[in-house]
Amino acid sequence: MIDAIEISKEIKNLMETRSFPAISAMLRNQTPQDTALIFAELPEESIPVLFRILPKDQAAETFVEMDYDRQEYLIRSFSDKELKAVFEELFLDDTVDIIEEMPANVVRRILKNTDLETRNAINEVLKYPDDSAGSIMTIEYVDLKRNMTVAQAFERIRSSGLDKETVYTCYVTEHDHKLLGIITVRTMLLADPQATMESLMETHIISVNTLEDKEEVAKLFNKYDFLAIPVVDQENRLLGIVTVDDAMDVLQEENTEDIVKMAAMQPTETTYLKTPTWVHSKKRLPWLLILMISAAFTGMIITRYEEAFEAIPLLVSFIPQLMNTAGNCGNQSSTIIIRGLALDEIRFRDYFRVVFKEVRVALICSLALAIVNAIYVMIIYRDAQLALVLGATLVVTIILAKILGCSLPMLAKRLKLDPAIMASPLITTIVDACSILTYFAIATQVFAL
Amino acid sequence: MIDAIEISKEIKNLMETRSFPAISAMLRNQTPQDTALIFAELPEESIPVLFRILPKDQAAETFVEMDYDRQEYLIRSFSDKELKAVFEELFLDDTVDIIEEMPANVVRRILKNTDLETRNAINEVLKYPDDSAGSIMTIEYVDLKRNMTVAQAFERIRSSGLDKETVYTCYVTEHDHKLLGIITVRTMLLADPQATMESLMETHIISVNTLEDKEEVAKLFNKYDFLAIPVVDQENRLLGIVTVDDAMDVLQEENTEDIVKMAAMQPTETTYLKTPTWVHSKKRLPWLLILMISAAFTGMIITRYEEAFEAIPLLVSFIPQLMNTAGNCGNQSSTIIIRGLALDEIRFRDYFRVVFKEVRVALICSLALAIVNAIYVMIIYRDAQLALVLGATLVVTIILAKILGCSLPMLAKRLKLDPAIMASPLITTIVDACSILTYFAIATQVFAL
Repeated sequence: MIDAIEISKEIKNLMETRSFPAISAMLRNQTPQDTALIFAELPEESIPVLFRILPKDQAAETFVEMDYDRQEYLIRSFSDKELKAVFEELFLDDTVDIIEEMPANVVRRILKNTDLETRNAINEVLKYPDDSAGSIMTIEYVDLKRNMTVAQAFERIRSSGLDKETVYTCYVTEHDHKLLGIITVRTMLLADPQATMESLMETHIISVNTLEDKEEVAKLFNKYDFLAIPVVDQENRLLGIVTVDDAMDVLQEENTEDIVKMAAMQPTETTYLKTPTWVHSKKRLPWLLILMISAAFTGMIITRYEEAFEAIPLLVSFIPQLMNTAGNCGNQSSTIIIRGLALDEIRFRDYFRVVFKEVRVALICSLALAIVNAIYVMIIYRDAQLALVLGATLVVTIILAKILGCSLPMLAKRLKLDPAIMASPLITTIVDACSILTYFAIATQVFAL
Repeated sequence: MIDAIEISKEIKNLMETRSFPAISAMLRNQTPQDTALIFAELPEESIPVLFRILPKDQAAETFVEMDYDRQEYLIRSFSDKELKAVFEELFLDDTVDIIEEMPANVVRRILKNTDLETRNAINEVLKYPDDSAGSIMTIEYVDLKRNMTVAQAFERIRSSGLDKETVYTCYVTEHDHKLLGIITVRTMLLADPQATMESLMETHIISVNTLEDKEEVAKLFNKYDFLAIPVVDQENRLLGIVTVDDAMDVLQEENTEDIVKMAAMQPTETTYLKTPTWVHSKKRLPWLLILMISAAFTGMIITRYEEAFEAIPLLVSFIPQLMNTAGNCGNQSSTIIIRGLALDEIRFRDYFRVVFKEVRVALICSLALAIVNAIYVMIIYRDAQLALVLGATLVVTIILAKILGCSLPMLAKRLKLDPAIMASPLITTIVDACSILTYFAIATQVFAL
């Protein structure tokens, strides 16, 4: 692990004395990822100068790792020639990622400085929906023909100029680009140099369609331990590949999105610190409003029982406890079910097994909580009736909370909605109303109010 | 995507007529992962028979993908010879994973049927802590010497018999196993066959220590797009490698753990449906108890204000709304900060920037909510004083909730605790007490109670 802050301070000092050879020596041994981290700690104005002292391929790779603000700043400082040189070194998927984030005038400059073929390929990838396999694929891969020998295939890998791990799985295609088979470099290494692709290739291929949800693609990597997966169109023509590093990024993004949605927010595009305050507010306010208005409903229920708590004011002081406990129980169930659904560990056909399990868990948990609460109430208030009311309310509402908590996400999944929106805050609000209703219904019976 | 249920039904029918060649033909084209999924749908008793008709290497790979219950059942049905044959095909990391889940008598049988060298290696890996790099590493990798030529290296890869992607990055070591450099198959393919490892290898290596937290290791894959990372001891001796597929599994596990902890549960070892009811209950009850007892505190605050709500009973009906809204706001902040910390997007040094941002978000959100709420109160109750009390309470408690929501997780991180425990349920409970206190303090002032 490098200390980006420490190194950036040293570079700042060296820049003051204009000791560029020393800076160059310091940066040369850094990985592109670390160079980008160091750049992130330096003032924006100093980046163009530093960028120009990096070796050509380190410069391009560092550029990919930088945040969009700095990329934009750099692009604006580039001459057309520099811009062209950097983008020629990039992989198409990285270029597309950058283009998607840049303002229109920057995009125009980038496109102006790429050759026609690349420009067409960029436009091709840009037209796929945001969450599709097509949008994360790269079109750089090693394309082989069925009658090539191993020796010829190695020659082709050498001449392809690909410098990522993408070379380890090669694709055998027909002249019309239809995918025939895949072959790994490992297989070729173990084979006779004169053997043909046709005799060695694996024809039982797992591929994805360009429009497949990228989350599903990422899950395939998780399941099959692939390094890359081919992306084909409806006619099984090979259009590109998705690599494991991009699949891993997708998994992390999707996890973040789920977590954020489960806390009643809409996901943001950028990191927390880079997201402006008003965007944060905009992403949080809608659910807050919906939930506040729904909670007014619980308030109305309370209003109906004014007489009850005017007779026994102590009843009011248990409202937070009952509401919270039921909410927490519903929250636990919905969270564990949402996660299980996301990991494909739970399917809709498991519905009754899930409900049965949750009801038993609810019984165990609610009885334990009711007993502890009864002891507390007996010690403090010496009121057996009150202990009974609270205990019965806990048992009923916890069972209800857990049934709702597991049912709503599964129902959402069934209706092809995102189960994550059925998380804690929404369940809590519904469960609150139920627990208040149960509480006062039981209390008015027991105390004969 | 295969339909495991459909295929398993067909197999069940074929088994009744004992049509094993037909079953064999059906299974032969399945990936090991899919074969395991199909087996999961079949009755346990039928697995040993089916397992024996699989080709040898498909059998071993399928075994790895099966769930632990079925693995245990199969092992118990194996003769010593079969057991030996299956485990000889496995990679060490997979063997260790299985051993960790099996009961002692099964483990003894497995160990009895492995050779001394493997047994020692298993014991070596088993001694690393559960969450360390050592516990997820594999000891199968291609080990090269500095004076080997490319041609010799390829020969060594061929003879290593490794059949996973682990061959694509090779490791150059000294005779005392000290790690000197790494070299990829791609580099070797592009080089002169007579070039030595020493002249080609990358010596600027990123490696991890055996005791490094496995989550940190997984994050390195995410950052650097590695396919494998070397694991070394304190003396920089190479002990094994972690591969990208295992890193991806770790990321998913850690995400699940965080999500579960954030909903006030302790993580379980197995999937939802495989975890027994009493284990689910045990994992959920502790936090429920703690939070229920803490909520009693909020109840005590309410008791202090009995006179206030006896004078104006309507005050009680806004308790759920205020508690929920403040809780949701705190929940949003803590969730987004916990996730930011987990992704290293937020660090402790950003504390004041974070608080400043949250306060501004809180101001925007709370003012919007206060206005909507005021309109609602004016329409229903035509009571400006009540609207004022509720509005002021919303603004104060939301600011407080958001400050607490971002501060507690960051504080936890600083104290080297897991920020995930500072999530929604705990924050909600604290925020509840604050909102009730604020509400009645403001109400008693405004209504002069």
